[in-house]
Amino acid sequence: MSSSQLLPFASDYMEGAHPAILKRLTETNRTPMPGYGTDAISEAARAKIRAACQCPEADVYFLVGGTQTNATVIDALLASYQGVVAADTGHISLHEAGAIEFGGHKVLTLPHTDGKLRPEDVDAYLTAFAADGNRDHMVMPGMVYISHPTEYGTLYTAEELRRLHAICQAHKVPLYLDGARLAYALACPENDVSLPLIAACCDAFYIGGTKCGTLFGEAVVFPQKNRAPHFFTIMKQHGALLAKGWLLGLQFDTLFTDGLYEQLGKPAIEAADTIRKALQEYGYRLFFQTPTNQIFVIMANEQLEHLAKKVSYSFWEPYDDAHTVIRLATSWATTDDEVHELTRIIKELAQ
Amino acid sequence: MSSSQLLPFASDYMEGAHPAILKRLTETNRTPMPGYGTDAISEAARAKIRAACQCPEADVYFLVGGTQTNATVIDALLASYQGVVAADTGHISLHEAGAIEFGGHKVLTLPHTDGKLRPEDVDAYLTAFAADGNRDHMVMPGMVYISHPTEYGTLYTAEELRRLHAICQAHKVPLYLDGARLAYALACPENDVSLPLIAACCDAFYIGGTKCGTLFGEAVVFPQKNRAPHFFTIMKQHGALLAKGWLLGLQFDTLFTDGLYEQLGKPAIEAADTIRKALQEYGYRLFFQTPTNQIFVIMANEQLEHLAKKVSYSFWEPYDDAHTVIRLATSWATTDDEVHELTRIIKELAQ
Amino acid sequence: MSSSQLLPFASDYMEGAHPAILKRLTETNRTPMPGYGTDAISEAARAKIRAACQCPEADVYFLVGGTQTNATVIDALLASYQGVVAADTGHISLHEAGAIEFGGHKVLTLPHTDGKLRPEDVDAYLTAFAADGNRDHMVMPGMVYISHPTEYGTLYTAEELRRLHAICQAHKVPLYLDGARLAYALACPENDVSLPLIAACCDAFYIGGTKCGTLFGEAVVFPQKNRAPHFFTIMKQHGALLAKGWLLGLQFDTLFTDGLYEQLGKPAIEAADTIRKALQEYGYRLFFQTPTNQIFVIMANEQLEHLAKKVSYSFWEPYDDAHTVIRLATSWATTDDEVHELTRIIKELAQ
Amino acid sequence: MSSSQLLPFASDYMEGAHPAILKRLTETNRTPMPGYGTDAISEAARAKIRAACQCPEADVYFLVGGTQTNATVIDALLASYQGVVAADTGHISLHEAGAIEFGGHKVLTLPHTDGKLRPEDVDAYLTAFAADGNRDHMVMPGMVYISHPTEYGTLYTAEELRRLHAICQAHKVPLYLDGARLAYALACPENDVSLPLIAACCDAFYIGGTKCGTLFGEAVVFPQKNRAPHFFTIMKQHGALLAKGWLLGLQFDTLFTDGLYEQLGKPAIEAADTIRKALQEYGYRLFFQTPTNQIFVIMANEQLEHLAKKVSYSFWEPYDDAHTVIRLATSWATTDDEVHELTRIIKELAQ
Repeated sequence: MSSSQLLPFASDYMEGAHPAILKRLTETNRTPMPGYGTDAISEAARAKIRAACQCPEADVYFLVGGTQTNATVIDALLASYQGVVAADTGHISLHEAGAIEFGGHKVLTLPHTDGKLRPEDVDAYLTAFAADGNRDHMVMPGMVYISHPTEYGTLYTAEELRRLHAICQAHKVPLYLDGARLAYALACPENDVSLPLIAACCDAFYIGGTKCGTLFGEAVVFPQKNRAPHFFTIMKQHGALLAKGWLLGLQFDTLFTDGLYEQLGKPAIEAADTIRKALQEYGYRLFFQTPTNQIFVIMANEQLEHLAKKVSYSFWEPYDDAHTVIRLATSWATTDDEVHELTRIIKELAQ
Repeated sequence: MSSSQLLPFASDYMEGAHPAILKRLTETNRTPMPGYGTDAISEAARAKIRAACQCPEADVYFLVGGTQTNATVIDALLASYQGVVAADTGHISLHEAGAIEFGGHKVLTLPHTDGKLRPEDVDAYLTAFAADGNRDHMVMPGMVYISHPTEYGTLYTAEELRRLHAICQAHKVPLYLDGARLAYALACPENDVSLPLIAACCDAFYIGGTKCGTLFGEAVVFPQKNRAPHFFTIMKQHGALLAKGWLLGLQFDTLFTDGLYEQLGKPAIEAADTIRKALQEYGYRLFFQTPTNQIFVIMANEQLEHLAKKVSYSFWEPYDDAHTVIRLATSWATTDDEVHELTRIIKELAQ
Repeated sequence: MSSSQLLPFASDYMEGAHPAILKRLTETNRTPMPGYGTDAISEAARAKIRAACQCPEADVYFLVGGTQTNATVIDALLASYQGVVAADTGHISLHEAGAIEFGGHKVLTLPHTDGKLRPEDVDAYLTAFAADGNRDHMVMPGMVYISHPTEYGTLYTAEELRRLHAICQAHKVPLYLDGARLAYALACPENDVSLPLIAACCDAFYIGGTKCGTLFGEAVVFPQKNRAPHFFTIMKQHGALLAKGWLLGLQFDTLFTDGLYEQLGKPAIEAADTIRKALQEYGYRLFFQTPTNQIFVIMANEQLEHLAKKVSYSFWEPYDDAHTVIRLATSWATTDDEVHELTRIIKELAQ
Repeated sequence: MSSSQLLPFASDYMEGAHPAILKRLTETNRTPMPGYGTDAISEAARAKIRAACQCPEADVYFLVGGTQTNATVIDALLASYQGVVAADTGHISLHEAGAIEFGGHKVLTLPHTDGKLRPEDVDAYLTAFAADGNRDHMVMPGMVYISHPTEYGTLYTAEELRRLHAICQAHKVPLYLDGARLAYALACPENDVSLPLIAACCDAFYIGGTKCGTLFGEAVVFPQKNRAPHFFTIMKQHGALLAKGWLLGLQFDTLFTDGLYEQLGKPAIEAADTIRKALQEYGYRLFFQTPTNQIFVIMANEQLEHLAKKVSYSFWEPYDDAHTVIRLATSWATTDDEVHELTRIIKELAQ
């Protein structure tokens, strides 16, 4: 079934690339390039990312998708006997089909708070592990994984990120940030976590492309040089090394030219704000209060039947026998017309 | 260092996509699509591939790159205690950074003959394994892997493929064909192995896109329905599931419209033939006789120094203290001008 | 530091083997045997286990230790993309150092109730998974793991086991029972779960030896013939195949001669009952009510300091700032004198 | 079928333990001990091994069997993207059912010479890898594995071991020695490789127990302190941590008391020499010239039929249509009577 007739709010990866990217792809299509990201455009993209993150020594690599990136980075940073700490709602915990365990590593889950790990919970967990008399029979926490925005669309504060960093440092455990939707955090007025702050607080992070304007692609940043030796080979071993690596370099070079990456999410945030306001105005209940481009709303099952005829949305979870939580996602590609039409439908259904 | 000033013969993945693909990408860029290959274009591409392979029940999946595809398919078809039989020159044996072993499986190598597995060697190996009193302490061969064309640019004959099929059937071991460069086999006058024959002889195979006209992407075909249960999840687990799956569907839909895939390699074969003739005419020795788009030639190291200033080529292996084997590859994108210029340089160097 | 001067209540694996086993080991020490469990004594042991479990077609294998057994059985029964459902307190969840994940499989945890999985929770989980729209992006539950007695010393009822069996059957998911301490369940008056019932309800289980009278060793039973093809090779692959396999066969042959296995735990249960009564009489609080050979008691930290000089016990977890939960374990080897002395010390400390 | 009526020459693990071990097992059977090798006897055994190897800082661990030990040590020393170099006849290459690959690592094979790796071949391989332009797409050699005696019963010379050590040092690749049958090397007049030399040349090695006088067990030695951090946890993760660890410690403590380990193999070597002489005297052809306790002899298939009625031996490989290579193994337990009877049968069959 094609969803092309429906209003596209199912996810933030329903359309192709930002027009600036498509333009450059077209221009360079017949220019011969060396493979595997050794080309000049990829090198330029790396330099721009280092500058934007204010970490001039960083190693930067380009991979194709989020699950692949998480599995590869986590495998690179963990020793064979270590696991990765994550919120129970983390993408690596729930929705990566066991890609982390496929690499031999356990995901050590902590209960989430609004989709986030609380610094004090991480500290308590790492402290308890170190004190546990049975720790040598257990999986050692070798890394902390967070996502920003989270899978629930929520945001860490700068203060929380700094505390997580301090706690990880104190326990000698690296901190890794999954930025699949990072552009939507950066575009959000509430957000006070900048790229340089992320680079200062994390041992590794990735800047999401797939959901943020590229056709595909994620940029991994290790702020400290040679933090992950032989990462190129590890990428190859994970099937994560793109032959035509310049396709990734070119996309990120475009996103990091003239600050595009930091502006690209703005229409998505504005669209989401408009939709949230409309939902509340017309009496719907939000499941979470989220400031970014994902909206979680509780709808009567009867309403959903009507909605499904006109709007493509994501099922989230059952709420009760008569209601369901759904997710509506805006993106860099969301248009005013689409928002207008959606709010009209919402209003209609509320009556 | 950009290689854009050099004549591009280092590999067959130095340029972007066939213009027909780029055109469609541009046209559909802002059309909303559902994710993960569930879109209508991917479905259409699957139907066209089934038709071209004359296997109407086939399961068809799209992945991003060759190593990823090999690792995912091999993992899907092997039991945990089985390994995959391959030529010692096979891509999975040598140049995938241990991606197969990362999934827990041994690559069981047999000596190659011109880059190929000889059917009689495979038969002898499988027969010997079954008779070995220690076989329960050994890795059971659970699959045979071949590539067509091979890593050396050579081709299996239809007769060889039929014999391999019969041997695999007799031993109840699936046969898997890596078609990373399949378009160049199909375009080669010497080749008598068609897509329907491959589908009739193999339990799984992939139709290469990355080296054959797409930006990226490989199409996996399981001719028998449900031969690899839960392959979608296995792809996700391997980080091989593209969010914007329609990008892959669209590219293969284009290649399998009006027989483009089977014609696309012709200029590459003609170019390679011209270059081979020139090399021999000017007194160079070919390292292998190969009929497809890869040319392996022995050059004096002194000549190479000069060549490197004008041509981008691949180092293959040292030949002796004074000579080196290099690879020149043509592709769908190779132009007459490039061939003409290369033959001119070759002639010049020979004098 | 030797603990040999302390009263041995730290665990149920502090002494060697039941005297009957040691006697036979001594008798057969110089009798040549074929390797890897292909000997006649191992075969006799298998026959006796089949008889005791009333499953005449069962495949029986002998492995060395519990973690090894769990990892090998779970790997044998799961497909590569599946995980194993367990209580969050399960041995495989917490105390096997990631051995299951090392094999590529996720442990899917559910909250425990007294160390047990509740049948209704398992049903709800499996039902919810089947209904989850994102299930193809998640780890498929491919097995349910329980332990009997549990890690908390509690017991499933026959009714609960039958319900778990019915639920697993309905969802087509195998049920696996870890019987590391099974002898102590069988010796417990409260227990109504017999070996034949376990064999009727489970797709695989193991009969614990290490904690139940052998020097080492666990007996895996697959009640249905050929339920785990090539399990011998899988054992080898896991490093779990003992060269002198008859050492395992001999021990289990002894335990399953004249019903020794079912009687061996009785002194341990009686000892534990005596200790539990004493603890309660002298005003200590039990952390769990458990009927088997493990006793979990809350002690003041001050008391523990004194206890540690005379008794070897296990730290379990902190209770509050001033108290700690400890475990005392009895075993087949616990003597009346030891119990008497322990109760005397407990009384003394309480005053 | 019991082989107890046949003369036991099938392997060197057909009988139980050296009487001195059995005696101590019996004496300590009811002495309570702490688990997992933390007991005083294991500590004493470690001290004696350090002294015998003249490496006072060594970390020493006890594991149960050879395949398990190889898999655990190799996994501990390799990075995730590295493989282990071995002879194509190495135990890890052929007869461990893929245990190394199960841990994610490739076995990188080199052709053997009499079952050994030639130092110059290792040097050439490591040098070629470092020079290979494609090395980042390949499995990096992260370790060299040798066995002493080899699987073919042959021995490295002290000079060869020193050269391998120097080569490994030059390439910064650790050297690991599998000493499954080390006692038979140490007892062999030809051997000039001592325990201190092994400790001086290797980053890790194991002293075999299973084939050399224990019921089971291998002692891993890392001559440099903390060479394999968290090895205890890695053992647990591999299912290689024995609960009653003192059983291993006690056996090695016995073997390393009064130099027992270095003398124990002498009768086996003398027996093997007698048998080799008899075979040659009666006109049989040896397949290899081996100085240790394994004898490889070519027999007519007709002769084998008769031999099989009286002697338990190992099939090695077919020689030609009418002949087969078999292996006869002596051990610490081989008696003069058995040797006498075997030579009588051999003589008889030759006539």
